Parts: sequence; structure tokens; C-alpha cells
Amino acid sequence: MSSYAPLKNDTFLRALLRQPTDYTPLWLMRQAGRYLPEYRATRQRAGSFLGLAKNPDYATEVTLQPLDRFPLDAAILFSDILTVPDAMGLGLYFTEGEGPQFERPLQDEKAVMALRAPDLSDLSYVFDAVTQIRTELNGRVPLIGFSGSPWTLACYMVEGRGSREFHGVKKMLYQRPDLMHHILETNAAAVAAYLNAQIDAGAQAVMLFDSWGGALADGAYQAFSLHYMEKVVRQLKKEKDGVRIPSIVFTKGGGLWLEQIANIGADALGLDWTMNLGRARALVGDRVALQGNLDPAVLLADTDQIRAEVVKTLESFGKPGPGTGHVFNLGHGISQHTNPEAVAVMVEAVHEISRNMRL
Amino acid sequence: MSSYAPLKNDTFLRALLRQPTDYTPLWLMRQAGRYLPEYRATRQRAGSFLGLAKNPDYATEVTLQPLDRFPLDAAILFSDILTVPDAMGLGLYFTEGEGPQFERPLQDEKAVMALRAPDLSDLSYVFDAVTQIRTELNGRVPLIGFSGSPWTLACYMVEGRGSREFHGVKKMLYQRPDLMHHILETNAAAVAAYLNAQIDAGAQAVMLFDSWGGALADGAYQAFSLHYMEKVVRQLKKEKDGVRIPSIVFTKGGGLWLEQIANIGADALGLDWTMNLGRARALVGDRVALQGNLDPAVLLADTDQIRAEVVKTLESFGKPGPGTGHVFNLGHGISQHTNPEAVAVMVEAVHEISRNMRL
Repeated sequence: MSSYAPLKNDTFLRALLRQPTDYTPLWLMRQAGRYLPEYRATRQRAGSFLGLAKNPDYATEVTLQPLDRFPLDAAILFSDILTVPDAMGLGLYFTEGEGPQFERPLQDEKAVMALRAPDLSDLSYVFDAVTQIRTELNGRVPLIGFSGSPWTLACYMVEGRGSREFHGVKKMLYQRPDLMHHILETNAAAVAAYLNAQIDAGAQAVMLFDSWGGALADGAYQAFSLHYMEKVVRQLKKEKDGVRIPSIVFTKGGGLWLEQIANIGADALGLDWTMNLGRARALVGDRVALQGNLDPAVLLADTDQIRAEVVKTLESFGKPGPGTGHVFNLGHGISQHTNPEAVAVMVEAVHEISRNMRL
Repeated sequence: MSSYAPLKNDTFLRALLRQPTDYTPLWLMRQAGRYLPEYRATRQRAGSFLGLAKNPDYATEVTLQPLDRFPLDAAILFSDILTVPDAMGLGLYFTEGEGPQFERPLQDEKAVMALRAPDLSDLSYVFDAVTQIRTELNGRVPLIGFSGSPWTLACYMVEGRGSREFHGVKKMLYQRPDLMHHILETNAAAVAAYLNAQIDAGAQAVMLFDSWGGALADGAYQAFSLHYMEKVVRQLKKEKDGVRIPSIVFTKGGGLWLEQIANIGADALGLDWTMNLGRARALVGDRVALQGNLDPAVLLADTDQIRAEVVKTLESFGKPGPGTGHVFNLGHGISQHTNPEAVAVMVEAVHEISRNMRL
């Protein structure tokens, strides 16, 4: 038995498990973020991004902010995607105007072979945040835990920072696949343990973000990203306190590999906006639920255009039937340039229109 | 009758037209570029990138440089992708370390409605370069002319520069599709005239680079990029002096739309490395030839790895049969960090292995 308040809105979990729902649930990738003035205020008080992400009080505060504004159907842990390699000792840091960077990237064989899965106690600030958020949610909506995929973490760990072309990590992949597999084995074990600890701490669903899998060549994607996501998914706890914990896998730019991704054991697949939802549904059948996939740029337009694009997305998936499930989301994180009013329009449109579609 | 020397190596043109060839021909996107020390030397003499691109003597010199090093099967005009909007009066300029930018991007309705197709005489430096290159090639290999696609040009014209997320141009697309269609109609007419003038000047094949089509959502891609590429392709001269002029269309990140792209009337489709070549061949059948698709990062590895990846790519397409054609290429432009020796290894491997595959 769970010690938390009972869940008042399980629409999101039901859709992931392909059970009937009264409407299409939605949440937004990066829903706690810079487009919200209240987030920017908390971020300023925290002093730095890491000060925000590593403090459970602040992480709880910003996780709940979008839910206080919009009737979203899930919360997602506010954290950084690179907590795991940071806990492996690579030295995560941020400089103003730049993305995340590592002080000690994996630039030679010695560094790669010395890599070890982290001591989970070094990530207790994450699990503490999960428990605190779950408690403060008080059953309003489910809480999603997450991690970067083994490959996506490896991109940052080898490059030492974000990249457009990933030449460093790809050079290692082609030149020394043995080293790359060593990193990915280590990452997969670490990510599985990390997500299971989030589940133990209170996460009610978990998501793997494979932000950079789409940069890989066909063949390399299967061997260096998908294979290790499967290793993670197969190790995930499927239940906690007798309740199913669904898993979501999202490879941005992975539409071409959708049928293969559908076979790794996850409950749902995230889709970016390049994939036709109806076609995706036909390809995966009743094996997995689908999550997505509005272009975040739609939210830069006005009310009528936003509503029209919401209709297109919902109609592209079609009326959910037996054994299928759709969670509405953007195809990528929400832009910092989004007006929060546009989000309100979208959330209302998704709920209203999807409810009417089921009548 | 053409006044040029007869073509000594027509393997590339034959493959595009899905005729039998003794081996798989190849060329490289951005084959005249910064990875070659002789290119960097010419670039320095020219003083600036635009000084290089706008001078037919320099353009001829750098176009021929990779052919003097490697037995490539085609030359491609050295030029900039933004010559057409520059001739429309947008004011193309480059600053060190930045990509191309426009002084007068299309930022309001008045600017959009004032847009006109350029006077082709303002692009005579391009056509002069085509004629000079074709003459100096003296029939060694065919010369490819090219243009950016209407959508890709529009991305730069509205954003004023390269972008990662294209929020400016996408905002216009969703908010004011009428303005976006006006730009794209204008671009399509301009691009068709531009490519036909290149054909008149001596180009023996033409290619449309849709570098940013893959950033579009499903649905938007068809309406705002593919539709206008079809308009261009349908207006292209199919013959010059009694010889067929094949066309190639390449949407980077367009693998999900391959079957639709195969229907717009082009002779060949370019593919990036995310697409499985064998699957692509099965999808398009004998409608079009395929061009691609090695990950440029493979060229950062050593000889054995390069040869192994060349084998994978050739075997993925398989032995060309009746009515099919394969042109080997990278899935994107060659990296400036490539060692020219790696290119020599790849070119030799493609020729040797593909010849053996046909025995």
C-alpha cells in the first residue's frame, strides 16, 4: 500500500496503459521552464540552474508551477538530464548563455575504462525531490520521473558539451566501438538503477529522453542507442505498491525506427512533429501508446491557429479505440519564447475537443 | 549539338537515369571545401567567402580541386546556397565565424509583398562560372548545378540567418500562411528560372537542397516545402542539346516522406544517413534513383573502419538491378575536420567494392 494520497486524476496513466479515457490527457515537455515568469523568479532566487535543480525545495516549487496555471494531466520531475554523469564524477557545470558542460569529459581510453556507475547516494537530492513533489501533489496528477538515454548521456560525456554534429562521440563510435559500448553498458546500468530509485521514491511513470538518437545512422542507432534503451527498460520495475509504473521512450528524430522502438518493452513512445500520428498508430498497432506531437512553434501563433493545429493532431491520431492510447504533448520541449496564454488555449482545446471526439 | 568536349565518364548520369553502370559512381556534398588545404589557400587569396563565390575564376578553381585529388564521378558548381535571395535584394553578407546573414530579412508584410523574383542578369556570375567550369572540365565528368529549395531559402530570408529551431519562419507559417505561400511561390519561380539558366549555361544535372525541410511538421512539410519543390521540378528543362538533364531532390531529415518525395518528378532522391538504403529502395521501387548516404563522421575514422562502412552502405542498397540506380555520397556535407586521405580511401573503396559486387 502506498502512503501517498490516492490519485484523483489517472487519465494520463490510463492512456499510457491503453485503457479507455474520457478525454486525451496532456502534459508538456519542459512544462516547468523559462516561458513562465514564476519559474524565472524562482531560478533567480536559486542563484543558478544547478542551485535550482539540486535543491529539492526549489525543484518541488518549479515542478508544481505549471500545474497551478494549467489543468495538465501529469507533473514531471524538474531536474537536469545530466545528473547521472555528474554523479559519475565528470563535473557538470553551466556558464551563462551556454548549455551544460563537463569539466572532465571522456576523452581517452583511460578515462573511459575508469568509468563506473554512480553511487546512488550522490543522487539523493533527486530522489528527495521526487518524494517531496509526490507528497505535495497530494494526488492531483501522477508524477513522471525521467533520465537521459544511455546514448544521449554518452554524447555529452564524450563531447563534454552539447554539439550540433557530434563528431567526437561519433568518431569514437566508428573508430573504437569497444570503448563506446563500455560507456553505454555503464550508462545503461546506471540509468536503470536511477529510474528504479525514482520509482521507489514515488515516481508513477518514467520516461527515457533519447534527445540525440536521431543523429545516428541507421544501424548505428539500433546498436548504440536502441539496444541500451532496451537494456534499461527490461530492468525497470513494472509495479510499485501493486500499481503499474508505465514507461515512455522518446527518440527525437526516430520516426524511421518506430516499429523497432515499439518492440523494446516500453508502454509508450514519444513522437516528434515529423511523424504522422495516424501512420504511427497504424505501424505500432496495439503494442504501445503514443505521446505527442504538436510542433512547439505552433504555440507562437494566435488562438485560432493553435486550436486548428490541436484539431489536426487529435484527428491525425483519431478516436482512441480498444487497446490504443494517446497522450497529447509537444514534439519537443516548449520554447522559452512561448506566451503562457497560448499554453492555456492549447490545454483547453485538447481537453474540450478530445472529449467531444469521444461522444 | 553541344559545343563542349564529349563526356568521358557518364557513370553518374547513367546511375541517375537508372541505367546499368560498371560501378557505383560517387561525389561528395561540399567536396570543394575547407577540408582541402588548396581550397583554404584559394579562399585566402579571394579575401572572403563571397569574393570566392562571386568570382567565376575562383569558383572554377575550387570546383576542380577535389577532382584533381580524387577520381570522383561528378563536379558540382561551387557557389553559395543564398545567391537567389541575395539577387532579390536582401543583402547577403558573411561575418567571420558566423554563417550567412541578410541585411534586410523579410520581417513584415510589406517586405514580403514587395518580394520579386530576381533579374537573372544579377546572377550572371553564377552562369559564367558554370560555363567556365564545364569548359575546363573538358568532358572529364558531368557538372552538377544546384539551388536551395524554396522553403530552405525562405528559412534564411525570414530568419535573416541560420537557426536551430526556425521559430521566426515557423511563426509566420502558422500565423500567416498566406504570407509564407507568397514567399514560396516567388522562390519557386525564381529557383526554376535559376536552375534552367544553369542548364543553359552548361550544367548537366541539377540538385535541389532542401536543407531545412526536415524541421517541418508532417503536413507542413508537404504544403510548404514539397509542394514548391514539385513546382520547381515540373518547370525544369528535361533536355539540353538532345541530352537528358537529370534532377536530384534532397530533403535532409526527409526519410519519413520518401514515398511522397519520389512522386514529384525528380530523377533521383538524396538520402541522409538515418534512412536504410535497402528499405528506401524497396519503398521507391524503380521510380527514382537514390543518392547517399554515408555518415560524414565515418571519414573521421581509420582506413579499416571506412572500408567496412562503405561495404555496409553498398550492401544496404544491394546490387543495382534493372531500373534502379545508386549514386554513392555522404548523407550531408563533408566535415571541415576530414583528413583528405580518408576521402581517398573511401573513393577507392566505393569504386573497387561496387565493381566487384557487379561481377
